[in-house]
Amino acid sequence: MSHYYRLVISCPDRLGIVARVSSFITGHGGSITEASQHSDFESGRFFMRYEILADTVGMTPEALREAFEPIAREFDMQWALTDTRQRRRVVLMVSRESHCLVDLLYRWTAGELDCDIAAVISNHDDLRSLVEWHEIPYHHVPVPAEDKAPAFAEIEQLVESADADCVVLARYMQILPPGICQRYAGRVLNIHHSFLPSFAGAKPYHQAYRRGVKLIGATCHYVTEELDAGPIIEQDIHRVSHCHTPNDLVRFGRDVEKAVLARGVRWHLEDRVLLHGNKTVVFA
Amino acid sequence: MSHYYRLVISCPDRLGIVARVSSFITGHGGSITEASQHSDFESGRFFMRYEILADTVGMTPEALREAFEPIAREFDMQWALTDTRQRRRVVLMVSRESHCLVDLLYRWTAGELDCDIAAVISNHDDLRSLVEWHEIPYHHVPVPAEDKAPAFAEIEQLVESADADCVVLARYMQILPPGICQRYAGRVLNIHHSFLPSFAGAKPYHQAYRRGVKLIGATCHYVTEELDAGPIIEQDIHRVSHCHTPNDLVRFGRDVEKAVLARGVRWHLEDRVLLHGNKTVVFA
Amino acid sequence: MSHYYRLVISCPDRLGIVARVSSFITGHGGSITEASQHSDFESGRFFMRYEILADTVGMTPEALREAFEPIAREFDMQWALTDTRQRRRVVLMVSRESHCLVDLLYRWTAGELDCDIAAVISNHDDLRSLVEWHEIPYHHVPVPAEDKAPAFAEIEQLVESADADCVVLARYMQILPPGICQRYAGRVLNIHHSFLPSFAGAKPYHQAYRRGVKLIGATCHYVTEELDAGPIIEQDIHRVSHCHTPNDLVRFGRDVEKAVLARGVRWHLEDRVLLHGNKTVVFA
Amino acid sequence: MSHYYRLVISCPDRLGIVARVSSFITGHGGSITEASQHSDFESGRFFMRYEILADTVGMTPEALREAFEPIAREFDMQWALTDTRQRRRVVLMVSRESHCLVDLLYRWTAGELDCDIAAVISNHDDLRSLVEWHEIPYHHVPVPAEDKAPAFAEIEQLVESADADCVVLARYMQILPPGICQRYAGRVLNIHHSFLPSFAGAKPYHQAYRRGVKLIGATCHYVTEELDAGPIIEQDIHRVSHCHTPNDLVRFGRDVEKAVLARGVRWHLEDRVLLHGNKTVVFA
Repeated sequence: MSHYYRLVISCPDRLGIVARVSSFITGHGGSITEASQHSDFESGRFFMRYEILADTVGMTPEALREAFEPIAREFDMQWALTDTRQRRRVVLMVSRESHCLVDLLYRWTAGELDCDIAAVISNHDDLRSLVEWHEIPYHHVPVPAEDKAPAFAEIEQLVESADADCVVLARYMQILPPGICQRYAGRVLNIHHSFLPSFAGAKPYHQAYRRGVKLIGATCHYVTEELDAGPIIEQDIHRVSHCHTPNDLVRFGRDVEKAVLARGVRWHLEDRVLLHGNKTVVFA
Repeated sequence: MSHYYRLVISCPDRLGIVARVSSFITGHGGSITEASQHSDFESGRFFMRYEILADTVGMTPEALREAFEPIAREFDMQWALTDTRQRRRVVLMVSRESHCLVDLLYRWTAGELDCDIAAVISNHDDLRSLVEWHEIPYHHVPVPAEDKAPAFAEIEQLVESADADCVVLARYMQILPPGICQRYAGRVLNIHHSFLPSFAGAKPYHQAYRRGVKLIGATCHYVTEELDAGPIIEQDIHRVSHCHTPNDLVRFGRDVEKAVLARGVRWHLEDRVLLHGNKTVVFA
Repeated sequence: MSHYYRLVISCPDRLGIVARVSSFITGHGGSITEASQHSDFESGRFFMRYEILADTVGMTPEALREAFEPIAREFDMQWALTDTRQRRRVVLMVSRESHCLVDLLYRWTAGELDCDIAAVISNHDDLRSLVEWHEIPYHHVPVPAEDKAPAFAEIEQLVESADADCVVLARYMQILPPGICQRYAGRVLNIHHSFLPSFAGAKPYHQAYRRGVKLIGATCHYVTEELDAGPIIEQDIHRVSHCHTPNDLVRFGRDVEKAVLARGVRWHLEDRVLLHGNKTVVFA
Repeated sequence: MSHYYRLVISCPDRLGIVARVSSFITGHGGSITEASQHSDFESGRFFMRYEILADTVGMTPEALREAFEPIAREFDMQWALTDTRQRRRVVLMVSRESHCLVDLLYRWTAGELDCDIAAVISNHDDLRSLVEWHEIPYHHVPVPAEDKAPAFAEIEQLVESADADCVVLARYMQILPPGICQRYAGRVLNIHHSFLPSFAGAKPYHQAYRRGVKLIGATCHYVTEELDAGPIIEQDIHRVSHCHTPNDLVRFGRDVEKAVLARGVRWHLEDRVLLHGNKTVVFA
């Protein structure tokens, strides 16, 4: 199967970036199979993502990175060049609800998520059998309300030793401590079960029911220290009516949550999500 | 063309309401062409709406109301029986933006909104020609920031003398004073250009842009004294991305706003919206 | 947990059906928790579905059926009264693709589908481990192209001995012979991976790709002898663009297919789908 | 207000196109404000669209075209460079139904459609007053069933003398003769009131009603000689149920039709729609 290099760039917008970068790729024989660009009119920042057929470039990713370095410096770029042969390592964190986990594991099995799932961590033991059936290590780390610090130290240790590139909170239901948020900034994805910024915090479906909204939603976002306030990656909604009880909202919500989280995770793994302050550029 | 009686009821839920009401209608020969019911599990309140082919009932609406009165008392009903031959009188209020007005006038012309449009009131004179082309009276009532009371007194007077059943704020952009809100409680519809409860108040599209949401929305609700907090009738959304400027959001938003408002107004005019505390039951 | 009786009726429309039926239920003390009705203007046929809290009726379902029989005869009703304590027995049929199966099994585990899954039948052995992990019997019945009759005889036998109320083709990819279609008429659900009637038959996503449509869809329908032409229960769509390859369409399609099939199966199991010629009335 | 050059290209895919074109633009000082590219994996064809801030290029469009010609020849490009200061001239054709016309005229007035509306042509006189209120010439050309040729000759003459770049059939309800289809190939947009390829031809909503579909749709496509078979630009759908009569489908359909047509027209006017055989690439 073909593999690809992905070149992802953000920098101050100015004349000639595309010409320079595309000439560089072409000059090394690189065939660009997908190209996305965005100029943000307000911040004056430029974003781009190239997908390059690796076999057309006669160089290792390391050599290509080195060759690109002077251009990156000249244009003051934040950038990364990744190689799809180096599969990302993902740690999933779950609580008791399995819908997002089942969905992500199906997609992973079906080849929709190009990554290794290094481990699943949970504050409960309920989902062990499901995870182990997929031959993935399962770590049960209880998080006692009265003293959470040791649990989170253990979790941080587990994430470290799993050599994780990315952590996905697939309905984890615990608030991560600031340390982890900072250490893995831009690499921890969460699914919030409301259409943020509505109904941040606890029990969003019950909040939505009380307000009498006609649509409920879910939001995939990067975790930051401020609860449910990080950069939004993806959102979607489901129509509800007066007929529906809070339990119906929870049930519909599960479908929205898993779909939104799966899109967010896939786009993250494919380097399609670029941070732009507290917002995202998503080259979906 | 056939006309209909509409019987709309809300009352404490208990055994036999449907049997009693449907037997009453049937006993008077009434053919029920549409029936909707809802039992609210939480509040224990029951809601129903019947559409009855008027010609099958050998009685005037007044006589039918009188005959129904004992049942209504027995079950402690809030209720109304309306006759579609008595067209509702609607006053539209607008500011400068015409999208909702153009849309409502088209639907009215096409027969989608069964009402008379008694008048259009605006704080600007911009839309006069459009309104008068439709042969509807246009009242220009400026609302000076420094003293709004006389303007609102004049507006209340105009609504009164138009003999209005219902007022539709089709992007009016002014906050109605509490007096009007109370006097026409449950009969003033507003379109808010956000997916409430997100981004209540001013400039919601700019708020949405800054937060980086991936969907924008609009909300049709009954106006209450508390700004943007009244019972929600209908909501919808439009997908946006990092590509879109605040102006694009405004443009997409226009489409959502007019669609959501049109549905809300139509349902209101057809007695499909029943109040339930600060929520609505919508038999759409 | 409460259980319910469900009374489902279709009959020629005439005066007094609702009054008669609701009085009957009320007369036996029955509390109606959900009521749906529909008069078809064109065919003159009437449809209704009542959900009745079983404990409020002091009778067995058998006794209630017997008491209702005279009313049913008088109004020439097709009808059924079911008891939610009698769980339906479902046989799932699959081929190699697991997305619908994984989704249905998740929903079944989560309590979204009120049924017993009696067995899974497949023409391949690929999904055995998944099914058996859920402690459901798995039958591998190869269907050789050159002589399918013995295989279908075995399948019919398996469905019989599983005492199945309903068969769900969860991407089975084989055409059932007319005998089974007739024997289980109105009880075999299929998911077709296109927005019918577009792209009936084989490889619908490739047909869609070649036609350059901007939306792809899926259709849940009852199986009849005519391929992909049975009564439609539910449909939904996913937006696509020129960017997407046939493989992308297949991937998006999986999400639509499983969502549409799950809704169809749930509604069928809850007696919400009433046949009306080659169409359906769905009290969703 | 700023104006833009738009460079739209399709050519056989090969190494270096983007580098060459972007270097050319940059070399002339051109600031690219929007860039879109697509490589079609199956046909090996490449598509691109650049939006360039005109003031940053020190050349007339004519001079820029001349300078670009050698590159175009080298890469065997089909291409166009347009200048947004040269507003397109559009002829609208309508019959009796006004919903698409009202919608397009509103959007045109609101600045959403960057064009001149040169004329409206209709086979009926019903919409004259509406059109003339917008100060647009209205031509009533009856098309008698027994001899349509003279009418279409007159129409072709009117389109010619209006100096039209593009013709929009906004529910025109007549089949254009092959001559006009060929002469204005890729420049005549139609709205078909079904989700093509379902229900091509006459009375699609009645066809949809009889088939019992759960979603209805509309399709904006370029007109070709084969009825309803031209390249699809945009599609959308609206959910329906057993409750809805053919008249309801027509009513919902109007909303979908006007939205889909408006998007198609806007994208066409902004050079976002590129033909690719009988399909389209839409850089929306």
